[in-house]
Amino acid sequence: MAVGQVDFPSMLAVSGVMLGTSNAAIKQTERDDILVVQLAEGASCAGVFTQNAFCAAPVHIAKAHLSHNPRWLLCNSGNANAGTGEQGMQDADTSCQAVANLVNASHLQVLPFSTGVIGESLPVDKIEKALPEAIAQLDEDNWHNAAHAIMTTDTFAKGASTCIDIAGKTVTITGISKGAGMIQPNMATMLGFVATDAKVSQAVLQNIITQAAEQSFNRITVDGDTSTNDACILMASGCSEAPEITQDSEYYSQFTAVVVQICQQLAELIVRDGEGATKLIRIQVEQAQDEAEALLVAKTIAHSPLVKTAFFASDPNWGRILAAVGRAGVMQMDLQVVEIYLDDVCIVEQGGRAASYTEEQGQSVMQQSEISVRVVLGRGSAMQEVLTCDLSYDYVRINAEYRT
Amino acid sequence: MAVGQVDFPSMLAVSGVMLGTSNAAIKQTERDDILVVQLAEGASCAGVFTQNAFCAAPVHIAKAHLSHNPRWLLCNSGNANAGTGEQGMQDADTSCQAVANLVNASHLQVLPFSTGVIGESLPVDKIEKALPEAIAQLDEDNWHNAAHAIMTTDTFAKGASTCIDIAGKTVTITGISKGAGMIQPNMATMLGFVATDAKVSQAVLQNIITQAAEQSFNRITVDGDTSTNDACILMASGCSEAPEITQDSEYYSQFTAVVVQICQQLAELIVRDGEGATKLIRIQVEQAQDEAEALLVAKTIAHSPLVKTAFFASDPNWGRILAAVGRAGVMQMDLQVVEIYLDDVCIVEQGGRAASYTEEQGQSVMQQSEISVRVVLGRGSAMQEVLTCDLSYDYVRINAEYRT
Repeated sequence: MAVGQVDFPSMLAVSGVMLGTSNAAIKQTERDDILVVQLAEGASCAGVFTQNAFCAAPVHIAKAHLSHNPRWLLCNSGNANAGTGEQGMQDADTSCQAVANLVNASHLQVLPFSTGVIGESLPVDKIEKALPEAIAQLDEDNWHNAAHAIMTTDTFAKGASTCIDIAGKTVTITGISKGAGMIQPNMATMLGFVATDAKVSQAVLQNIITQAAEQSFNRITVDGDTSTNDACILMASGCSEAPEITQDSEYYSQFTAVVVQICQQLAELIVRDGEGATKLIRIQVEQAQDEAEALLVAKTIAHSPLVKTAFFASDPNWGRILAAVGRAGVMQMDLQVVEIYLDDVCIVEQGGRAASYTEEQGQSVMQQSEISVRVVLGRGSAMQEVLTCDLSYDYVRINAEYRT
Repeated sequence: MAVGQVDFPSMLAVSGVMLGTSNAAIKQTERDDILVVQLAEGASCAGVFTQNAFCAAPVHIAKAHLSHNPRWLLCNSGNANAGTGEQGMQDADTSCQAVANLVNASHLQVLPFSTGVIGESLPVDKIEKALPEAIAQLDEDNWHNAAHAIMTTDTFAKGASTCIDIAGKTVTITGISKGAGMIQPNMATMLGFVATDAKVSQAVLQNIITQAAEQSFNRITVDGDTSTNDACILMASGCSEAPEITQDSEYYSQFTAVVVQICQQLAELIVRDGEGATKLIRIQVEQAQDEAEALLVAKTIAHSPLVKTAFFASDPNWGRILAAVGRAGVMQMDLQVVEIYLDDVCIVEQGGRAASYTEEQGQSVMQQSEISVRVVLGRGSAMQEVLTCDLSYDYVRINAEYRT
């Protein structure tokens, strides 16, 4: 049940980045569940990973392999290889070795990713059997299949793609993501793979993906949980004719802004596919003393089950939003100067319900499938935005019935 | 829908503490919604209040009046007098004055409490009209009616009562609470009123209620929200013949332990009445480095919507518990030494599913209406327990339909 228009976009191929998929029948047999990505020689790769202390085996290994100039990515859906102990580490390593054997490389050059059910052993034999077909399928025009192969409980495939002009040359940025909640019921949730043909060193790439993730994937929440398997990888093949993008390059800001934008599109699609979501909610906090304060308030609202059920019910229950702001932990906040808006309708001012507010105005906004909540703190000039969705019966159903 | 046995207990009267109720028809007319408590001259009173920065008008005033040797409490249900701005402060003050006029006292000696819908003006005229009847009803044997008068969406009245022997004299401790969630849909949630006939100074009483609340009401969560109106008051009439309980008294620990126990019983009843709750879950975290760490892990589990929906579905989805422990924010946690138990069944050890674990064992525990989750961190000797309930369809229904 997606919120809004979520048709898969036309995806620009990225020179030097080939993708191949195949069906290992790890959990089901209807669609491909193995993705292999091959990067051109000399490509760079950087990534951000889950903050969960108990990250899954593939996350440990992908982090370690990042420093070995990786040229292959292997991702399977259907099994997260999480909570699998020492055996899980060996299985992730064996999977990398299987790719390496087929392409005549070192297993250190392969980054592994897994998403799906946790606590079950990774069926390495199934993956090994399916790998030759995925490698045979490697093609720059394979983003559509790739986006589908990494899905678990996603209800639609997620992609974003654009190109920009850098010094008269075209640079392409194309990415896919998966996830239907910050944490899927199976714990193996958000993955993002973004590729560009720009030439960017690994160090610069790391700065860019860290910033982009901070402004996109770290600004969405469905249920406040954090997966053991989250990862977002930014790959740069260097095959474009555009000049290298360095930290001091005049194109750095332009390029980074586009990566941020692609990541934001991919992140928003995850919220639109939030488990049971019927509405997309933009929480905007303005006039905070600093960004951390703005983010704290925005996330407290976005995580409140009471706020989220009110949105599900199309109930302009502004008291719940006010209470969430109040308990966010901001010291010495003055309720008298706080203003809260639903889209353009002022609902709270001067310590209570706005004088101009009518229930009809609130109801009217609440009927929409996309709603902005704007909180003006009157303390400074920092602002932050967080995306979330409502909390519906279907969230409970999906998560209660997941394993039955 | 209460979890377990929640019959209202027989309540021991507390000498020097009289209670009277009446019907002001603030929100409905079926039951009394006004409670007045009168304390004997020389009584002491202490309290703990919500941490929400936007606390309601009566909370502001009750805090201020605490230092004026209060002898009356006025509590109304049906209207929280929250989010009501300057008018709300005046209304709370006027209510106190109304009590003061009738009993020939100063309004500073009256503590006001309100619980119910927010953002609507307190109907002071209705309260004024109902006050004489409540005062006429003042009686030491009125705890049953008092517990009912403070209910909002509670499905049952909550009380606890006991007596102890101090230096050969009987000391009674009796209390009531209301709440069906850490925050009600209406924001006006937890209230607790505990009285004793012991002789205790206000300063000592404050220490005791702070400690008792920390070990009871601050250890429960239904949905992680914090109300604007939460308050718990401890009253000591001094009418018992037992010697005064001072900080250095040999009876201090014994007396405090019983107040803690009464508060824990009242707190547990709130979780048993949790919105939509079908199960009572005890989250016990052991072998943490310190209590703060144990509490952090316990609360992260207790707040996880994924863990709570799994309990609702009777699904032993241990991966969700493991993921919650992992994202709690404890630095350098070693998954290899963490053990997780459902009651006595070990489900996680050595980084993954316990070798001895069978799905049948987990299912068997999950069918119970009361379940313990025990997490052993292997880092130290501190432990903490938090009580919560599951997250059901009814939670969404109750909170989505609240104002319709």
